[in-house]
Amino acid sequence: MNAKASATGCQIVDCTIRDGGLVNNWDFSVEFVQDLYSSLNEAGVEYMEIGYKNSPKLLKGADSAGPWRFLDDDFLRKVIPQKLDTKLSALVDIGRVDENDILPREESLLDLIRVACYIQDVDKALALVELFHERGYETTLNIMALSNVMEHQLLEAFKEIAKSKVDTVYIVDSYGSLTPADFSLLIDKFRKYLPKKRLGVHTHNNMQLAFANTLIAVDKGVELLDASVYGMGRAAGNCPTELLLANLKNPKYNVRPALDMIDKHMIPLREKEEWGYIIPYMVTGMLDEHPRSAMALRSTADKDKSVDFYDKLTTPEVAHGN
Amino acid sequence: MNAKASATGCQIVDCTIRDGGLVNNWDFSVEFVQDLYSSLNEAGVEYMEIGYKNSPKLLKGADSAGPWRFLDDDFLRKVIPQKLDTKLSALVDIGRVDENDILPREESLLDLIRVACYIQDVDKALALVELFHERGYETTLNIMALSNVMEHQLLEAFKEIAKSKVDTVYIVDSYGSLTPADFSLLIDKFRKYLPKKRLGVHTHNNMQLAFANTLIAVDKGVELLDASVYGMGRAAGNCPTELLLANLKNPKYNVRPALDMIDKHMIPLREKEEWGYIIPYMVTGMLDEHPRSAMALRSTADKDKSVDFYDKLTTPEVAHGN
Repeated sequence: MNAKASATGCQIVDCTIRDGGLVNNWDFSVEFVQDLYSSLNEAGVEYMEIGYKNSPKLLKGADSAGPWRFLDDDFLRKVIPQKLDTKLSALVDIGRVDENDILPREESLLDLIRVACYIQDVDKALALVELFHERGYETTLNIMALSNVMEHQLLEAFKEIAKSKVDTVYIVDSYGSLTPADFSLLIDKFRKYLPKKRLGVHTHNNMQLAFANTLIAVDKGVELLDASVYGMGRAAGNCPTELLLANLKNPKYNVRPALDMIDKHMIPLREKEEWGYIIPYMVTGMLDEHPRSAMALRSTADKDKSVDFYDKLTTPEVAHGN
Repeated sequence: MNAKASATGCQIVDCTIRDGGLVNNWDFSVEFVQDLYSSLNEAGVEYMEIGYKNSPKLLKGADSAGPWRFLDDDFLRKVIPQKLDTKLSALVDIGRVDENDILPREESLLDLIRVACYIQDVDKALALVELFHERGYETTLNIMALSNVMEHQLLEAFKEIAKSKVDTVYIVDSYGSLTPADFSLLIDKFRKYLPKKRLGVHTHNNMQLAFANTLIAVDKGVELLDASVYGMGRAAGNCPTELLLANLKNPKYNVRPALDMIDKHMIPLREKEEWGYIIPYMVTGMLDEHPRSAMALRSTADKDKSVDFYDKLTTPEVAHGN
C-alpha cells in the first residue's frame, strides 16, 4: 500500500484556463469552460482560475486572444449562470490591469483576485492588492521567478508584504527549475518572515518535479496549491490537478470528474496543442531560465534539435554576451 | 539559482535497453545499442543494463523478441568490441535463467548481474546471487512490488539477505505508486535492517514521481540509481537518465551526450512506441497495482476511456470479486 499525503487545510486552485491559455491563446470554447467548472466542482476543487482580468487596452496583439484573457463580468455571467461550490479566480499583471475594470465583489462572480509580479514590483503589486481587498475580494500576491531573486531583495519584499493586507503569498517557480529541497527551504523562509500570511505554490513541470514540489508544500501545510488538469500550462505545464485529487487525503476530493474532463476534452486538445515534458523545456529548466527561447524553438522545424539548443544556451559568449 | 543534489557515492544504472525492451519487445538495432553505450560512457553513467540474460528455453513466445532479451556472450562481443568505462549489466528473473548460461566473469563482457524477484522468492533469488557472486560478478537483489509487501514478510526477508553475499539490495517501485515520503521510510528501513549492504532504487513514473523519488534516494546516499534515457520503460517508464545527469552534483556527469541520444534515437522511437505519463497508467499507479490492465487497454480502441477503466478497477465486485 502507498500512503496518501495528509492535506488538512490545503486548497486547490485550478489554473487550466488561465495558464493553459498561454498555450492556445485562450481559445477555449464556452462548453469547455463550463464542463471544466462542473468537473472541478464535482471533484471538490476549491478554486477555478477562469482567466486573466487584464485590460485589452494595455496589451498589444490582444485582438486575436480568446475571451478568457480579458474577463468581462457580463460575459462571465452567461458562461456561469449558476455559481457552484467552486470559487472563481482571476489573475492580473502589474501594469496591464485597469483598476476601473474591477467591480466591487458583490457585483462580480469572482471571489479571488491574484496579482502577479516580479520581485522589484512588489510595491506596485501590493497597492493593487490593497485596492482589490477594499473592494471585497480574497487576494494573493504571486511573486514570479523566485529562483532568480537575491536574498536581500527577498528580505526587503518580506518587510513590505508583512505590513500589507494581502491574504496569501505565492512562491512561483516560473522556470520549473526548483527541486523539492529548494521548495522546502523557500517555504520555511516564507513562513519565518511572513508568519501571519497564508502561503501558496505555483509549480512548473520542466523537470518532472511539479507534483513532487507540490507534495512538499502539502507536507508543510501550504494553504493554496496551483494545478491544471492534465498539467496544461505554458511550456512544460503545471502540477496535474488529477494527481492532487488522487493523492491528497481529503474525503471531499474525487479524481473521477477530472478523468472525465481529460477523456472528453484534454486528450483531443493535446493532439492539437503542445505542453508537458519536452526536452527543450527541460533544458531551460535545468539552466534556470525563462522558457521563451524553447517556446520559440518549438515553433520551428528544428524543434527536436535539443543538443544545438543546449549548446547555444550554454556557450557563454552566445548566451550571455559574457 | 536552483540547487543541484549532492550525489557523492551515487552511481547510475541505465536501464533503457532492458526495461525499455518491455515496450518494443527488445527491437533495438545494434546501432541504437552501440550509440547508447558510447553516449552513456561519454555522459559518465557508470552502468548500462544491456538486457535480460534469461533463457529462451524457459520462456514462452520467445522467438519474436529481439536479442537483448536473451543476451548471448558471443553476440555481445560483436556489439561491444571495445569495452569503455561504463560497465555492463544484465537482469535475470527467478525460474527463467539457466545457470549454465552464465560464464565466469573473466570470460564475459558483463560486470553486474541483477536478480529480480518477488518477496516470496527471496530465498531462490539469493541462491542465484551466491552462484553469480562465486563466478566473479557484482550482484544485486531487486525486490519487486514492495508496495504490496507486508511488514512481517519484509522482516523475514531482511534476515536472509543480511546473511547473504549479495552486494546491493534494490527497492523497486514496480507499480509507480510510491511517493517521496514512502521511499524515504523504505530507505530508512532497509538501512536499519541491512546496514552492511549497499542500496539501489528502481522507480516508475506513473504519478510523475520517478525523478523526485530518486532525488530522495540521492539525498539518503543510496548507492545505485536506475534510470532510462527519455524515461523509456514499461508503461509509464522510469526516472529519466537525462534528469539525473542534469541535476546530480558530480563533475563527471554530462547531460549533453544523453540529449544527443534523445535527438537521434529516442524522439523518432517515441513516435512509434508509447511510454510515459498516460492516464490509465496513472490510474494503476494511484491504485497501487500492476499496469498490465492499463497496458491491455492501451492496445484497444478504448485506450483513452480512462473513466470507464477507473470505474472497472474501482468497482469492488468487478475488480476483486469482493
